[in-house]
Amino acid sequence: MLVVMQAHATAEDVRAVCEKIESLGYRAHPLPGAERTAIGITGNKGEIEPGALEEMPGVRELIRVTKPYKLVSRDIKEDNTVISFPGTDATFGGPGLAIVAGPCAIESREQAFAVAERVHRSGAQFFRGGAYKPRTSPYSFQGLEEEALRIMAEIREQFGLKIVTEAIDNESLELVDEYADVIQIGARNMQNFSLLKHAGRARKPVLLKRGMSATLEEFLMAAEYVMSEGNYQVILCERGVRTFADHTRNTLDLSLIPAVQRLSHLPILVDPSHGTGKRNKVTPLSRASVAVGADGLLIEVHCDPDKALSDGMQSLYPDQFDELMTQVRQIAAVVGRTVPAIGEHAEVGATSKPDTGLRAAR
Amino acid sequence: MLVVMQAHATAEDVRAVCEKIESLGYRAHPLPGAERTAIGITGNKGEIEPGALEEMPGVRELIRVTKPYKLVSRDIKEDNTVISFPGTDATFGGPGLAIVAGPCAIESREQAFAVAERVHRSGAQFFRGGAYKPRTSPYSFQGLEEEALRIMAEIREQFGLKIVTEAIDNESLELVDEYADVIQIGARNMQNFSLLKHAGRARKPVLLKRGMSATLEEFLMAAEYVMSEGNYQVILCERGVRTFADHTRNTLDLSLIPAVQRLSHLPILVDPSHGTGKRNKVTPLSRASVAVGADGLLIEVHCDPDKALSDGMQSLYPDQFDELMTQVRQIAAVVGRTVPAIGEHAEVGATSKPDTGLRAAR
Amino acid sequence: MLVVMQAHATAEDVRAVCEKIESLGYRAHPLPGAERTAIGITGNKGEIEPGALEEMPGVRELIRVTKPYKLVSRDIKEDNTVISFPGTDATFGGPGLAIVAGPCAIESREQAFAVAERVHRSGAQFFRGGAYKPRTSPYSFQGLEEEALRIMAEIREQFGLKIVTEAIDNESLELVDEYADVIQIGARNMQNFSLLKHAGRARKPVLLKRGMSATLEEFLMAAEYVMSEGNYQVILCERGVRTFADHTRNTLDLSLIPAVQRLSHLPILVDPSHGTGKRNKVTPLSRASVAVGADGLLIEVHCDPDKALSDGMQSLYPDQFDELMTQVRQIAAVVGRTVPAIGEHAEVGATSKPDTGLRAAR
Amino acid sequence: MLVVMQAHATAEDVRAVCEKIESLGYRAHPLPGAERTAIGITGNKGEIEPGALEEMPGVRELIRVTKPYKLVSRDIKEDNTVISFPGTDATFGGPGLAIVAGPCAIESREQAFAVAERVHRSGAQFFRGGAYKPRTSPYSFQGLEEEALRIMAEIREQFGLKIVTEAIDNESLELVDEYADVIQIGARNMQNFSLLKHAGRARKPVLLKRGMSATLEEFLMAAEYVMSEGNYQVILCERGVRTFADHTRNTLDLSLIPAVQRLSHLPILVDPSHGTGKRNKVTPLSRASVAVGADGLLIEVHCDPDKALSDGMQSLYPDQFDELMTQVRQIAAVVGRTVPAIGEHAEVGATSKPDTGLRAAR
Repeated sequence: MLVVMQAHATAEDVRAVCEKIESLGYRAHPLPGAERTAIGITGNKGEIEPGALEEMPGVRELIRVTKPYKLVSRDIKEDNTVISFPGTDATFGGPGLAIVAGPCAIESREQAFAVAERVHRSGAQFFRGGAYKPRTSPYSFQGLEEEALRIMAEIREQFGLKIVTEAIDNESLELVDEYADVIQIGARNMQNFSLLKHAGRARKPVLLKRGMSATLEEFLMAAEYVMSEGNYQVILCERGVRTFADHTRNTLDLSLIPAVQRLSHLPILVDPSHGTGKRNKVTPLSRASVAVGADGLLIEVHCDPDKALSDGMQSLYPDQFDELMTQVRQIAAVVGRTVPAIGEHAEVGATSKPDTGLRAAR
Repeated sequence: MLVVMQAHATAEDVRAVCEKIESLGYRAHPLPGAERTAIGITGNKGEIEPGALEEMPGVRELIRVTKPYKLVSRDIKEDNTVISFPGTDATFGGPGLAIVAGPCAIESREQAFAVAERVHRSGAQFFRGGAYKPRTSPYSFQGLEEEALRIMAEIREQFGLKIVTEAIDNESLELVDEYADVIQIGARNMQNFSLLKHAGRARKPVLLKRGMSATLEEFLMAAEYVMSEGNYQVILCERGVRTFADHTRNTLDLSLIPAVQRLSHLPILVDPSHGTGKRNKVTPLSRASVAVGADGLLIEVHCDPDKALSDGMQSLYPDQFDELMTQVRQIAAVVGRTVPAIGEHAEVGATSKPDTGLRAAR
Repeated sequence: MLVVMQAHATAEDVRAVCEKIESLGYRAHPLPGAERTAIGITGNKGEIEPGALEEMPGVRELIRVTKPYKLVSRDIKEDNTVISFPGTDATFGGPGLAIVAGPCAIESREQAFAVAERVHRSGAQFFRGGAYKPRTSPYSFQGLEEEALRIMAEIREQFGLKIVTEAIDNESLELVDEYADVIQIGARNMQNFSLLKHAGRARKPVLLKRGMSATLEEFLMAAEYVMSEGNYQVILCERGVRTFADHTRNTLDLSLIPAVQRLSHLPILVDPSHGTGKRNKVTPLSRASVAVGADGLLIEVHCDPDKALSDGMQSLYPDQFDELMTQVRQIAAVVGRTVPAIGEHAEVGATSKPDTGLRAAR
Repeated sequence: MLVVMQAHATAEDVRAVCEKIESLGYRAHPLPGAERTAIGITGNKGEIEPGALEEMPGVRELIRVTKPYKLVSRDIKEDNTVISFPGTDATFGGPGLAIVAGPCAIESREQAFAVAERVHRSGAQFFRGGAYKPRTSPYSFQGLEEEALRIMAEIREQFGLKIVTEAIDNESLELVDEYADVIQIGARNMQNFSLLKHAGRARKPVLLKRGMSATLEEFLMAAEYVMSEGNYQVILCERGVRTFADHTRNTLDLSLIPAVQRLSHLPILVDPSHGTGKRNKVTPLSRASVAVGADGLLIEVHCDPDKALSDGMQSLYPDQFDELMTQVRQIAAVVGRTVPAIGEHAEVGATSKPDTGLRAAR
């Protein structure tokens, strides 16, 4: 159920309706839009008796939501969700593309800083690096854990890059929420519902990767888990699915981008590094991702990919990333998006607290 | 690396080798077989200097293991792993098939007891029922949690059925480890490596379901995660994979059974309920599962499937389960396996502590 | 549209209705059942005006068929289709299982006779061997063509084995129709609609293999193509589908068997040789196929698989086939089916003209 | 085996080497490149004795080709194959993108001309329309056959559009070869090897669509079938593959484009209409296809999609196609390709005989 407020409804009206909803035993989710605020109601098993709500001041109408996903749906929030970071002009879902780059795993302070310096110079606004690595084998490198988080916090201080890193369980989630700017939930955990709920109670935006055999509906429902707990800052990310095809590690499903954008207001990125698993495919698929309308890219970059402790095969050399940015910038211009050029970065050392409002754009 | 002990090596010899391994900074995994004990070594990055070990009393030889999975491999343990439960003759991996039956979710004490009474009467030795339900939607029934665990503990008391139930995070794992006889890790958590490691430190056997797009190697590596932490009682379970085919909810991949049995000593079951998602397919695919050589079955049974809070479409009526057992019993006889008939159950009220040894059979 | 005749309707009544249908510009398909004859009508774009037909002698009722497949459907013919071969007791769809065995390709007279002698002795009633081989590479062995057909005709004479071989285009179809007893349409040609229509005008039964990414509906529609041209003797065959799984060459989808049997009256076999691509998986999956309810098996057998010109990896040694037959015979007994033992074969040299009637059984 | 000629080798030298190869019982395939001619040798089972060839005038070296595909490989021909049409500047594989547009099926002269007029005006150089339709159901519209071919020949006369249409068997292939400019082989026939061989003996270029579960190697091998018969003018086309995903009819696999371009010199197009099956996804995926580096697009356009006899759901309205062309033109400019604007078409009425040489470009 959705309560649509009138255009001139006051913040007080919205608050009163939310309190009324909570007093009835449900959960209220106020979602401000460009022209009006809508309030999603969850926690109800069946239909809600509208009487009590529809006569309250500022209420325009009550709408039944029939889709299985509610808070992620454009039915509830028509405007695109834009996630911004005060002190910078970097956003997810705004007119500028979000470029997230860095090594698969943080291996050492030196390795991380070397990559950060290069991706920052090429125009990335976000630095990604694994602190907790979900590895197929228990005997593979599992990440530097909190030490890696500390290294990345230093990188933020030095370069002004916002930090994106993965949490793999409730314990690591708390640390990631403390140190990083964006909490990544990996493909293998897309249906780790316990982790999704915890992420829904975190303060930072959540970057949720599509599971390797997830349908569109399952993907949106995973985002709904996060939002249903009150964290409305969710960024989706396509990273390839499992098929019979063997020329790439996964099959990158770019048709998901327009499909998500029809149904949901959430921003959606593409990770062509995992999506192809091959260095020589990353740049052409990055161009395609921007052309299809993605809100940004996740790119693995390593200064010495052959010695990378994980996923070296798909990591770009810094020079290749620089070339990728040049190509992507041109495609972005055609589809009405921008990519920061060198020197366009906001002031270094800005705080990383994300904007808690959901602002409309595009 | 694997240390193969001589046939006449004493328990003392084995202990001494394990201590030596640990003193070198590695982890020792003693795996007793029918004729000899082997000791797996994990924790080493590269090759181990054999000198110190191969001259110790009782050591026959050192073997390099080249497969990515070690403890799950038949290279390390040639005999089938048999997991047994003192006070009963129920096993996973023994000559008798393990029949695990019950509702998808525990909905109430009455519902659970009604099903338990019927599946016990039909010959099941294990009762399954969801206490913590991983549901695609945050708004769907999520399970009765600890209350369900208490109900199932009562069912064990009353019927002597051993309890199999799913843990979905580290918190629920502790409770399941306390109340149940077998800890299930669901398909969506097959690569929740944090949960796998915790399960590896639990006292109860772990029933690990194949992820819906997991390769054989990924499946075995997930089991390796559990074993690498010291819990050697792992039961695998095929439950269908994601394909383009739309006549069943998943595509049940029965060729996995002989493939696992060639590579691993672990028992493997089949879940034709989730594997097909359709009631009318469960019995024929159960026959096929036993014929192909599976070590047991997981079957969903509900007394009133149309009113089930989850997965009613694939749950059998108790009478259908009874008929399934009759058919399966006949197929089992052909492949040299047995299925308990009515009245064959071990004494009711037996304790549920699993046998900690790994006994060889078949 | 379907015309259901009364139980006591005469052959003359049926003929008159068919003539009436044809005179209206449609095509009539008389399908005799155990208790009544039904007459399918195809060729109509929209609905047929029932007036002219429903008052004719012997007509019980007219039924609208809403499924996309008509002649393959159980709605039109409730009894199982049984395809028999005069002079033998071999059938497809009867109580006895159809065992089709032989080498992937006919390589020489000696090779073919050696295999034929062994599979005949083990109890196979049908001999399969490729004369026209659809090969991925134009530079691979493409088959001995008509020479292979002549060799197989000799094998029929000598051993009484009925011959099953693949046609790959309209030209080879004519020769196969002349020499063989059953015309195979391979997986790669399942949607070669031109070939299907030609097969529908052939005199011999058609064994149609499922395409490697065909849905159930597409598979039934391919059979409908054959039947719509007047050849009602169609045998379906599951042979594995393309998935991400890499432990077998294809993923054998045994749930297709009960799914087909619910919707269609046509017999359905399983080919575990192509379905797994690995010799050591063929016997367990053959047991499973019979247990699930398949009407027969296609098995590749070669006396020297390592030197086979195609698909040696999946071909059984004759001794393994003999063992397979022993195991399958036992499973068959449990599911109420029979498999001929050694010496049970019908008289050698019997003619191969198939029974044109569609007899009901099982 | 590949014979690389010297840069200054004469046409006479090339001819002499080809004759020598044929006299040895093999087949010679001269493939002229920008700087040198290479001569592929097929028909040999094992290795060829180089002695006779390597001393001939003009021969630089002999190279063993180890890939299963030979003539399609860049090892044999480094320069891109460009297929051009005298009297027009339209090419497949040249710097200009090939835009192929038209209705799924030719339904009538009026319908076809209406679409042709619009796509021509928007800048398409090729007109596509089905004369022979491979339909899942035998009862669906199967195409106007030769009448449709005649209509399309008129369209060529009137608008100067080159005609692309599908052949479904050897009979239709002959007619398509006679009437059309490019022979399409559909996805369902990608491994109809008999048809591929016939297409290899046709005079017109062959547009080969990827099968819906074809691997890259199988796709290239299908092209090799055509080339091995002497027709070197092959155009590849990605059109989506079968996966579990249900938000589009197929999953468009854009990573195939750079993968093909690394291995083969053949041009490759994308068909986002079949690749997505949904009108609203065609334009974004067209942008992505051009951005990833495809050599052209196949787009379904219909003036009244809701009344289309096939595939209306995925057909664009003419205005949408016009908008698509505008967007694609901008992306093309970024990746160094061109798309003809209105009025850039070559003279109407030009002959359609394709250039038989293989010219290098890009």
